[in-house]
Amino acid sequence: NEVKKIAVIAGDGIGPEVVAEAEKVLKRTEELFGHKFETEHALFGGIAIDERGTPLPDDTLAICKASDAVLLGAVGGPKWDNNSKELRPETGLLGIRKALGLFSNIRPAVIFDCLKEASTLKPEVLEGTDLIVVRELTGGIYFGEKFRRETENGQEAVDTCVYNVSEIERIARQAFEIALTRSKKLTSVDKANVLETSRLWRETVIRISADYPDVELDHVLVDNCAMQLLRRPSSFDVIVTENMFGDILSDEAAMLTGSIGMLSSASLGEGSFGLYEPVHGSAPDIAGQGISNPIATILSVALMFRLTFGYHEAAASIERAVKNVLDAGHRTGDIAVDKSSAIGTTAMGDLIVAAM
Amino acid sequence: NEVKKIAVIAGDGIGPEVVAEAEKVLKRTEELFGHKFETEHALFGGIAIDERGTPLPDDTLAICKASDAVLLGAVGGPKWDNNSKELRPETGLLGIRKALGLFSNIRPAVIFDCLKEASTLKPEVLEGTDLIVVRELTGGIYFGEKFRRETENGQEAVDTCVYNVSEIERIARQAFEIALTRSKKLTSVDKANVLETSRLWRETVIRISADYPDVELDHVLVDNCAMQLLRRPSSFDVIVTENMFGDILSDEAAMLTGSIGMLSSASLGEGSFGLYEPVHGSAPDIAGQGISNPIATILSVALMFRLTFGYHEAAASIERAVKNVLDAGHRTGDIAVDKSSAIGTTAMGDLIVAAM
Ligand SMILES: CC(C)[C@H](C(=O)O)[C@@H](O)C(=O)O
Ligand SMILES: CC(C)[C@H](C(=O)O)[C@@H](O)C(=O)O
Repeated sequence: NEVKKIAVIAGDGIGPEVVAEAEKVLKRTEELFGHKFETEHALFGGIAIDERGTPLPDDTLAICKASDAVLLGAVGGPKWDNNSKELRPETGLLGIRKALGLFSNIRPAVIFDCLKEASTLKPEVLEGTDLIVVRELTGGIYFGEKFRRETENGQEAVDTCVYNVSEIERIARQAFEIALTRSKKLTSVDKANVLETSRLWRETVIRISADYPDVELDHVLVDNCAMQLLRRPSSFDVIVTENMFGDILSDEAAMLTGSIGMLSSASLGEGSFGLYEPVHGSAPDIAGQGISNPIATILSVALMFRLTFGYHEAAASIERAVKNVLDAGHRTGDIAVDKSSAIGTTAMGDLIVAAM
Repeated sequence: NEVKKIAVIAGDGIGPEVVAEAEKVLKRTEELFGHKFETEHALFGGIAIDERGTPLPDDTLAICKASDAVLLGAVGGPKWDNNSKELRPETGLLGIRKALGLFSNIRPAVIFDCLKEASTLKPEVLEGTDLIVVRELTGGIYFGEKFRRETENGQEAVDTCVYNVSEIERIARQAFEIALTRSKKLTSVDKANVLETSRLWRETVIRISADYPDVELDHVLVDNCAMQLLRRPSSFDVIVTENMFGDILSDEAAMLTGSIGMLSSASLGEGSFGLYEPVHGSAPDIAGQGISNPIATILSVALMFRLTFGYHEAAASIERAVKNVLDAGHRTGDIAVDKSSAIGTTAMGDLIVAAM
C-alpha cells in the first residue's frame, strides 16, 4: 500500500480549525481502510505574509510539488486587504494555481436535505438541483497582461483576456468527461455575442464535442445563465466556463443551494494531482472560537479520495458519516436552526470520525 | 409647449407589438397633459439586416440623433444568430450605444406586489427589495480591441478591457447623483483583488465620493455581489459597476424580482438624451400572436418622461394606471396565474390608456 503525500495548508482565519478536523478524518481512514498518508504542513496566505513576507513561499510550493494532493483550509482576511498586490493572500492563490498548473476548478453545488430551508430559494424551485461548475482557472483576464498608462484622455488601466485553443480544449475535455459520468448534459457558458475569446471558446467546445457524441451540449450566454440559475437551477447538470464567468457563476450557484458552509471544491491539473478546499472563506469574524463548521473541509477530503486517489470506498464512508451525523440532528452554529443546541468544531469532527 | 421628438425603434419579435401599445400611451399623454410628441420610426436590428443589409442603418442613427429620446422595443432572434459579426443585431446594439454616447444603463429592479409569487425567491427574502443597477455601457471589455493571432501554442483570441479615469468618473458621478435621490447608499462592484481596471475603478469611485459626503459608499467584489443579491437583495439600493459585470448582475437582479416582464431600463449619455427599452428580449417564440406583455415598454415611456423630459405628472399617471389595471386583476399570459383568463397585448394597452 503506497504512501500518499498530502500537503496541508491550514491558512488563515478558521482555516487551521477546520483543517485539524479533516486531518482526523485522514487518520481514521488509515485505521479503517489501510491507506497510508504522509502529511506535511506548509505556510500560505496571510500567515505566510506575516511570517515570511510573501503569500506563497518557495518551500510551500516545493512541498506542494512533492505531494500527491494539497488540502487547503482558507486564506485571507481584512488584516491583509489593504496590502500592496505582492503582499496579498489572493496573489498567493493565483500564484499557486498557475505554478501547480491547476487549470480546472470543480465546484459541485448540491442540496443538503437538512439545509434546504437555509436557501433563499423556494424549496420547490431547488428540488432536484445537483450541478457542477467547471471553471477554467489559469487563463483569461485573471492572467493576461495588466497595466496602467497615461494617454491624452488621462490615466487608463488595461486588463487583457487571452485564451488559446489548447487551454480551451483541455478544460472542455475535462468537462465532457465529467458529463459522461453524470447525466450526459453539458452547458457551455460564454459571451460569444460580444467577446472574441468567447467565440473561440464556443468554436473549440463545439469541435471537441465531436469526440463526445453521447453528451448533449448547449450554449448559454453568461447573462442568461445568471438568470436561469435562479429560475430553474435543477435544469443544469455540468456547466463549463472561463475563469471570470466561472468565478461569478460558481459563487451564485453555491449560494442558491443554501449549503455554502458545506460545499467542497477541487482544483485539478493534468494527471491526478489536485488541490482541495472548502468553498467558504476564512471567516475571520468567528476564527479561534472553535465554532466553525468543518464539514466542507472534511468533504474536500472525500473529493480528494475520489478524484486524486480513487479511494471510492473511503470517500463514501466519509460522505455517509457526514449524512448520518446531520440526520441525527447535530449542527454547528452556522447551520443550526436552534443556535443554543449547536456543537463546536471539534465535536462535529469527532462525531463524523466516529460515524465513519 | 415644445414638441418633443421621439425616435421609435420597434425592432424584432414582439418589439412592434409592445411598442404599438406604448405609442398609444404617448398619444393619450398629449390629450391629457397637453405635451406634444413627434414620433419617427426607424429600422434597427434583425429587420434592418433583412431590409438594409446592416443592423444599424445610417438614417436610423440620424433619426436618433435628431431626436430628444429613443423608444426601443426589442431586437434579435434565432434567425440572425449565426450571421457574421457585422450582420448581427447585437452589433447594432453596441453600435448605437457607442454612436449615441450612452455611457450609462439604469436598470431598476423592483417588486410588483402582484408578481411576488412569480419570483423563485422566498417572499420574506424579497420583501423590501428596490434596487437600481447603474451599469457602465460604452467601455470595458465590450469595446476594447479584440482579435485573433497565431502563436507557437496555436491560435489565440484576445479581448482587451480598458477604462480611463474620466469614463469611471462620469458613471460614478451619475450613480452618486441617483443615490442622493434615494436612500443615499451606493455599492460599487469590482474585482479589485484581480483586475487593474477594477483597481482604477475603485480608486476613482473613492476619489469622487469626496464630493458626495452624504452618500454611504461601500465596495463589494463581483463574485460576492452575485451571492449577496441572492442572500439579501433588500440590502442593496444603488449598485454601480463596469460593463461586463453590470450585464451579468443586472440580469441576475432583474430575475430575482420575478418581474422581468415588467421592468424598464434607460440608457443615458451626457445631458438629457436617453434610450428607453424594456428589459425583456424579443421573445420570437410568441411574436405575432398578440399575447405579449406591453407593460415594461409602457413603463419605459414613464421612465423617459421622468429622466429625459421631466414630465413627472404624466409619468406618475402611467405608473398609477399600470398599478390600477394590475390591481383590478388584469393579466397578460406571462404573468397570469390562471392562463385561461389572460388578456392580449392590445387589450392590456387599452386598459392602461383608459386608466391614465
Ligand atoms: C480570491 C480570488 C482571487 C479568487 C478568485 O477570484 O479566483 C476567489 O474569489 C475564488 O473564487 O477562489
Ligand atoms: C445583446 C448584448 C450585446 C447586450 C449586452 O451584453 O450588453 C444585452 O445582453 C444587454 O444587456 O443589453
